[in-house]
Amino acid sequence: MKSPKTLIRPLVRNLHPYVPGEQPKVKGLVKLNTNENPYPPAPAVLTAVQKAVDDRLRLYPNPTSHVLREKLARLHGCKPGNIIVGNGSDELLAMAVRAFTEPAGSNASKSQSRVQFFHPSYSLYPVLAATHGAEAYPTPLADGFALPTVRELRNGKRWDFQAALTLVTTPNAPSGRGYRTQDLESICLAQKGVVVLDEAYVDFADEDSSALALKIPNVLVARTFSKAYSLCFQRVGYMIGDPVLIDALDRIRDTYNVNGLGQVAASATLDHLGYYRRNFAKIRATRTRLSQSLSELGFKVLPSQTNFILVEPPHPAAERWLDLLRAGKVLVRWFRQPEVSRYLRITIGTDREADVLLSLVRKILRRPPSM
Amino acid sequence: MKSPKTLIRPLVRNLHPYVPGEQPKVKGLVKLNTNENPYPPAPAVLTAVQKAVDDRLRLYPNPTSHVLREKLARLHGCKPGNIIVGNGSDELLAMAVRAFTEPAGSNASKSQSRVQFFHPSYSLYPVLAATHGAEAYPTPLADGFALPTVRELRNGKRWDFQAALTLVTTPNAPSGRGYRTQDLESICLAQKGVVVLDEAYVDFADEDSSALALKIPNVLVARTFSKAYSLCFQRVGYMIGDPVLIDALDRIRDTYNVNGLGQVAASATLDHLGYYRRNFAKIRATRTRLSQSLSELGFKVLPSQTNFILVEPPHPAAERWLDLLRAGKVLVRWFRQPEVSRYLRITIGTDREADVLLSLVRKILRRPPSM
Repeated sequence: MKSPKTLIRPLVRNLHPYVPGEQPKVKGLVKLNTNENPYPPAPAVLTAVQKAVDDRLRLYPNPTSHVLREKLARLHGCKPGNIIVGNGSDELLAMAVRAFTEPAGSNASKSQSRVQFFHPSYSLYPVLAATHGAEAYPTPLADGFALPTVRELRNGKRWDFQAALTLVTTPNAPSGRGYRTQDLESICLAQKGVVVLDEAYVDFADEDSSALALKIPNVLVARTFSKAYSLCFQRVGYMIGDPVLIDALDRIRDTYNVNGLGQVAASATLDHLGYYRRNFAKIRATRTRLSQSLSELGFKVLPSQTNFILVEPPHPAAERWLDLLRAGKVLVRWFRQPEVSRYLRITIGTDREADVLLSLVRKILRRPPSM
Repeated sequence: MKSPKTLIRPLVRNLHPYVPGEQPKVKGLVKLNTNENPYPPAPAVLTAVQKAVDDRLRLYPNPTSHVLREKLARLHGCKPGNIIVGNGSDELLAMAVRAFTEPAGSNASKSQSRVQFFHPSYSLYPVLAATHGAEAYPTPLADGFALPTVRELRNGKRWDFQAALTLVTTPNAPSGRGYRTQDLESICLAQKGVVVLDEAYVDFADEDSSALALKIPNVLVARTFSKAYSLCFQRVGYMIGDPVLIDALDRIRDTYNVNGLGQVAASATLDHLGYYRRNFAKIRATRTRLSQSLSELGFKVLPSQTNFILVEPPHPAAERWLDLLRAGKVLVRWFRQPEVSRYLRITIGTDREADVLLSLVRKILRRPPSM
């Protein structure tokens, strides 16, 4: 028998999988590295999930997340046929790549196998393109991580208005910058292919663009219960859009893709939105306070519409700060890519966590380490 | 704007998705149609899951199902690197198609894009092949749903020893027939591509073939917590095999593919295997009793190594029996494919459910309906 390596598709052998933020095994760390919500789910949501842990676990969950889709449809003023639920929005993003783009090297045109996105944005996108054998087609954002205008895109060298799929993280990650709906709309209208507006962080922003998914037939909006709704653990995300696009995603969906307790949790969440909206307000307030304090300490803080901030620390380099903060038991995120390597991404936690971070920063600044 | 239909890959537009067994909305039905376990999870498992419904829901689950893989490795006498956990074994089957077979029409040879399987077997396989753009390559089972020998396969017209991927449901569904490990081993050794032994029902069988996955480098064994371990609701399955094949699947895995409470539930399950083994014994006893009683009533009952039986009813036709039983509030499964359309597939429930079914059958037989 030859090594089983030869049994693996060359495409798969050469993949570089997405690297998630560290889930530390050490206790007592202040975890500001993966944009989780510092507040737990609503007590009523926990109760609803606990109550569902019974005999029903032996049964298959609803294969189409029916109850949840009905509720989401009411929330967004659309029909259940406008909505598909996924095992986290990551699953739906992967499905969008598979439903709308052709693997390169088939008879498809270049545009038909292009997964287009701005750089920097969610670093999963190029991985999804590579996994499908499609072409990852990144275009730089404008200065300060601004969204280029359609005119700028037309005049730029590297933008494809025919691209089969365009993925836009809005508000942007990792910069935290928010984009205006009218600017997003202009881009959506100019694109001939499918545009996914990935609104993973939208609940912390001033504006949302979900209306575009119900107005423009080539637009899908992706949402998640993970971050804003404190449900990372249970993997529930969804997309909104034209029933024809939703049906295409549905055709390639795993039969029972969304676990039952996740459906129960997400469904209960929608009955208690007031609780979550109060948390959004708290997180925005902490964001303002932390941003201001870090600015005063010499950090360059980019304006954020998300539950994290991108900050450029004073001397030493960001990568070194990552280690110094970790030594002080605070975990933040640093990305190696040149466009963002001088920044740290810091999740907005509780006020107490912000205070722990700030006092550690002050300590580090008082006694700069030997380099 | 053109209809968004044109934005969907032609391959996806033409798919016929898998049709899951009905999850009835009506209460009070005896549900013997989707091979769920009639017994709930162990009380200690329910308690473990309930206790985990807390603040942790806001955090991402372990991305590699680390604790669960460690326990599974101990169970199977292998290393965690021999194991990958999926969002149900369905997800892993789909991933195997994507990792090991090339979409047809690329530069690949015919064999490189073949998903080979016996017919009838799990009806999801051709759907997975079609979704990936690979060639579904079914070969009939021998008489009585027996596994053909390697010699028979060599002499037959339609078997590809070079196929990139071969999927074998063992014990077979929908027939319930069990296969001997030595016969499976001969086929695995003769195949040049990857062979997945899909052991979804193996806990109800006399023999299992998991050792082959640790002995032959091109063999993967798929298992699920759904049926035998009463966890359909939470979507946990796994594959065992050579670390090189496991790594290939891992490269195309969604980052957080297995929900946290599913990981907790599956992990707790492994601490209480005695409870489940007692249930397997009960289900096998009910299977024997139900098979015998139906035989006495004129049904042809195929021998089963699973938690269901395939039966050929006396007059009228099976499809009509499906309706008659449903009218009597008992749900069973009927498949339209010609090879099995004269049969009903009946899940083994509790003894009480078997009695309800038997008395309904007697009633129907006493008063044959006008046709």
